[in-house]
Amino acid sequence: MSAHTPTTPQSAVTVIGLGPMGRALAGAFLEAGVATTVWNRTPGRDRELVARGAVGAGSADEAVAASQLIVVCVVNYDAADSVLRRPEVTAALKGRTVVNLSADVPDRSREAAAWAAEHGIHYLDGAIMTPAPTIGTPDAVFLHSGPLELYREHKPVLDALGGSHSHLGEDIGRAAAYDIALLDIWWTAMTGYMHALAIARAEGISAQELAPFAKGIGAILPPAFDEAAVEVDNGTYTAKINPLTSAASTMTHIVHTSEAHGIDASVMRAAEGLTRRAIGLGHGGDELSRLAELLGRRA
Amino acid sequence: MSAHTPTTPQSAVTVIGLGPMGRALAGAFLEAGVATTVWNRTPGRDRELVARGAVGAGSADEAVAASQLIVVCVVNYDAADSVLRRPEVTAALKGRTVVNLSADVPDRSREAAAWAAEHGIHYLDGAIMTPAPTIGTPDAVFLHSGPLELYREHKPVLDALGGSHSHLGEDIGRAAAYDIALLDIWWTAMTGYMHALAIARAEGISAQELAPFAKGIGAILPPAFDEAAVEVDNGTYTAKINPLTSAASTMTHIVHTSEAHGIDASVMRAAEGLTRRAIGLGHGGDELSRLAELLGRRA
Repeated sequence: MSAHTPTTPQSAVTVIGLGPMGRALAGAFLEAGVATTVWNRTPGRDRELVARGAVGAGSADEAVAASQLIVVCVVNYDAADSVLRRPEVTAALKGRTVVNLSADVPDRSREAAAWAAEHGIHYLDGAIMTPAPTIGTPDAVFLHSGPLELYREHKPVLDALGGSHSHLGEDIGRAAAYDIALLDIWWTAMTGYMHALAIARAEGISAQELAPFAKGIGAILPPAFDEAAVEVDNGTYTAKINPLTSAASTMTHIVHTSEAHGIDASVMRAAEGLTRRAIGLGHGGDELSRLAELLGRRA
Repeated sequence: MSAHTPTTPQSAVTVIGLGPMGRALAGAFLEAGVATTVWNRTPGRDRELVARGAVGAGSADEAVAASQLIVVCVVNYDAADSVLRRPEVTAALKGRTVVNLSADVPDRSREAAAWAAEHGIHYLDGAIMTPAPTIGTPDAVFLHSGPLELYREHKPVLDALGGSHSHLGEDIGRAAAYDIALLDIWWTAMTGYMHALAIARAEGISAQELAPFAKGIGAILPPAFDEAAVEVDNGTYTAKINPLTSAASTMTHIVHTSEAHGIDASVMRAAEGLTRRAIGLGHGGDELSRLAELLGRRA
């Protein structure tokens, strides 16, 4: 039939970036019956998606021209910029909407939004909080920020990705800020768990022996998160259960046990350092939530 | 009627140490109808318990003589030793059973058990994983270690403390080792949460805005704990979801966002250091579980 006219969208959505997450996003769109164009800098990543009905674009500008909505999911904002800021791609983006689901720091989102505004590109930022296998399932968690009207306009297509979508505010950096804060919890906790497994093994306890009890600790974190959040928002830190002096004493036990086994305790040493600093400032009778306040206080 | 003969037990259990946790233990025994003698180094802490029916002993050796089972719950093993190793107390303990629920490092438990054996004292070690208000409720979690027969003998009385009781093995240090490993997870995770709240606040996000999402992270930790435990026990670290290179990149984003706001990132910097060390050793394509193996490897 007639050749494509690159300025007329032929798909409902274009996915740029076909790593494991980008492929999961494109796959979920296809599964939901959304006409999808895909592109990846390194060729060949689109084969399985094309076999499932995606249009494989020959270039980034062709990919952008194919849809009104462009979902970008690459390793970080340097990678996103290296695609979107090529002159022919920037030109093709004019009047279209970019939803950037790449992960980076909040300031990069703000800078990208300013660039987009200069070039007449509609811009939404987002973060994906769950791993690729959750995409298209009820377990997926997406955070969004940027102009609410724009978000509402594209939400019907984004909903094809499954899971929960939360619009966190018009400040374009907000999704990335939540992302960073939540990943801070995740990676710190998981590193603590790895350290605990190393101590356990040195004490003759296998990982799978410890795991059921570790899950018990995991189960009491969420209510503790709620309690501490109220303390932090209200600025009421006086200990009801665990004063910092007692927490510091436990942390010292952990450091000693760890180092007695020749196990690096640098993470717990850093946590103990923060806790002892708070005690030194006269907060020994406070809950650990005092740390959030002290950390947030500019020197 | 007749005066007490101090060598004949008059109570089913003696509780030594009447801090918040010791008082909760004694209160739970009383609530369950267990005849209880109590003692604390600083006098006056037993008043409420005596009003509820406890016998307030006048000295530690009198307290020890009052029961066959002595539950000790003081701040650490130095404090426990300073009571139990007084000659008159050690003499009174002969032939009786100590359940030491004070927290300390596993080697202190082993050393205390050796001391007890030398003095003809039966000895069990234990750890309380939940705060004082849970004692006597189904939420309490107790870990025990030491001779199984001895544990079985006293379990009916210990069950009056409510909650779940797990005997972890005959190695007397095992309860303390689990305790240390589990508290490692708890305090590392909670410190990570405090840091996340500080970043959130700097980005204009209140603690109670972040908390619902933080709880979502908390909810996915337990299954991740199970998965990582299998990886660690089997020594199979190859990344299915999150290679260390990707984790390190996220950790760097967290450090940069934190420090851009003037927020100390020492805990995450230590975690990032461990992760980058693992990458430097050629494990960039592995899951974070590789850290448990590397940490546990003696230098």
